[in-house]
Amino acid sequence: MKCRQCGRTAVMHMRPYRLSLCEKHYDGWFVDQTKRTIRTYDMFGHSDRILVAVSGGKDSLSLWDVLLRLGYQVDGLYIDLGIDRGERYSARSREFVERFAASRPGTTLRIADLNADYGETLQEVARHTRRARGKPCALCGLIKRHAMNRVALDEAYTVLATGHNLDDEATALFGNVLHWQTGYLARQAPVLPADSAGLARKVKPLCRRYERETAAYAILAGIEYIIDECPFAAHASSLRYKDLLNRLETDSPGALLQFYGKFLKQREDGLFEAQAVELHKCSHCGQPTSAPDLCAFCRLWPDNE
Amino acid sequence: MKCRQCGRTAVMHMRPYRLSLCEKHYDGWFVDQTKRTIRTYDMFGHSDRILVAVSGGKDSLSLWDVLLRLGYQVDGLYIDLGIDRGERYSARSREFVERFAASRPGTTLRIADLNADYGETLQEVARHTRRARGKPCALCGLIKRHAMNRVALDEAYTVLATGHNLDDEATALFGNVLHWQTGYLARQAPVLPADSAGLARKVKPLCRRYERETAAYAILAGIEYIIDECPFAAHASSLRYKDLLNRLETDSPGALLQFYGKFLKQREDGLFEAQAVELHKCSHCGQPTSAPDLCAFCRLWPDNE
Repeated sequence: MKCRQCGRTAVMHMRPYRLSLCEKHYDGWFVDQTKRTIRTYDMFGHSDRILVAVSGGKDSLSLWDVLLRLGYQVDGLYIDLGIDRGERYSARSREFVERFAASRPGTTLRIADLNADYGETLQEVARHTRRARGKPCALCGLIKRHAMNRVALDEAYTVLATGHNLDDEATALFGNVLHWQTGYLARQAPVLPADSAGLARKVKPLCRRYERETAAYAILAGIEYIIDECPFAAHASSLRYKDLLNRLETDSPGALLQFYGKFLKQREDGLFEAQAVELHKCSHCGQPTSAPDLCAFCRLWPDNE
Repeated sequence: MKCRQCGRTAVMHMRPYRLSLCEKHYDGWFVDQTKRTIRTYDMFGHSDRILVAVSGGKDSLSLWDVLLRLGYQVDGLYIDLGIDRGERYSARSREFVERFAASRPGTTLRIADLNADYGETLQEVARHTRRARGKPCALCGLIKRHAMNRVALDEAYTVLATGHNLDDEATALFGNVLHWQTGYLARQAPVLPADSAGLARKVKPLCRRYERETAAYAILAGIEYIIDECPFAAHASSLRYKDLLNRLETDSPGALLQFYGKFLKQREDGLFEAQAVELHKCSHCGQPTSAPDLCAFCRLWPDNE
């Protein structure tokens, strides 16, 4: 197939939009689409100080790269959870992030190291936490959200950006719908406004890009990234849901975009409004929580109770 | 595995409830569960006159059978759409229904024959209807709902029952959620109350029974039923959705029951209330419609316009 822009051999065929593009025009298209999403959802402007949470994977490194290319004030945050399992997962991910940052002067890589800051790795915390029942996955998101909020607050970033792609968002949506978790549905959005406690606005500029699109961008832009999934994720239900949704997308190209897009429309129209939860400040760390006193993160540490 | 009730060899193993039962106790369990669903949702009582819409398949014939065994005043309605396609699908389905009815004195089989009543088969109507774009499936539900309502009204039935099972309901729910059709979600329920126009209450007493449970009941009760799917359904997206949901159920027994059950809970709590549509009477047939004048069924016939 030929590139729609220049007629040269296309490298990327996107069935949902019936669009084929060559290497050069795909790159431009991806940057342009990201810019469009940022504008559509009024995510941030050039006066904002943006912190991108980077895992070392294709999505977050591509996002960091695109935001730099678009001239935003953007730094990266790597959260080191000390995941090892004989594969040095966290250490290897961090190396990809550090190499990326080292080759881009004018941007700063910040590190939040769970073991250095709190004296325990993710696995160690999971071992003594009832909530986790020995499973680190139950704590991963909680700890990462807390670290992002903390660094954004301490370093005066106005926007926190994550690299969630469309497949991630559709998978989360599918899981939330399967269990009708209306509180989560109420908070699943491309933009969560800043909290009155002074916490940064949260945005997902790649939320409308398919996973294969971010992978293609990273590869064509020469970004080296960690391909392995987290060793703990192997049996996660999210991977099973993703697999089901991929079948759906294969049968009916554009299905995920429609599922997510129509959800956002209903959400904007107030479908889950009544489900939104009142938040207030954690008495220990000051971050927003729906719990009456200590937030879920601060309750992880026995000394706080 | 052994029957939980009597210790004899079990014929039916139900992973969602971790329950195994022998032939005799499965039969009793199925009838009991149906009774329980009827009570839980306050579907009808022994003074009601119930009309079961029967297709000749396992679900609707099992429902008719169970309602007779429970001592309800219940008749059947077969809607003959004249589907042929060289396989005599409607004619063969009708034969199964007629054989069932003939062997059960004290119950009446009513027939609504589209071709006899309106001069055209489903395929013929589809051919001249813009709405169908040549596809009969777009009209099937519409025509069947209209016929059920008409017969119930003409013959003074107070309740219309259909054999929708849990897999049907979960599949419809999945399709409605994928496209965020909130109007349909608002009306997807085990009971739709009677309309002020005098139309019958609609109920689905098998909505909490897995498809394999109704199939097992029909087989063990010696009910002969048509196994083939409608020849038009082969490429229906509902079959693809059912396949996806079956994978989900296999990976996680009870997933469909939870998906549907939690939806009903949210629906009862008013999640989709704002989406409910105001209905009024069709100016031609008097059935409820959201259209301003003629209902969608009456608009199928050029003479009415």
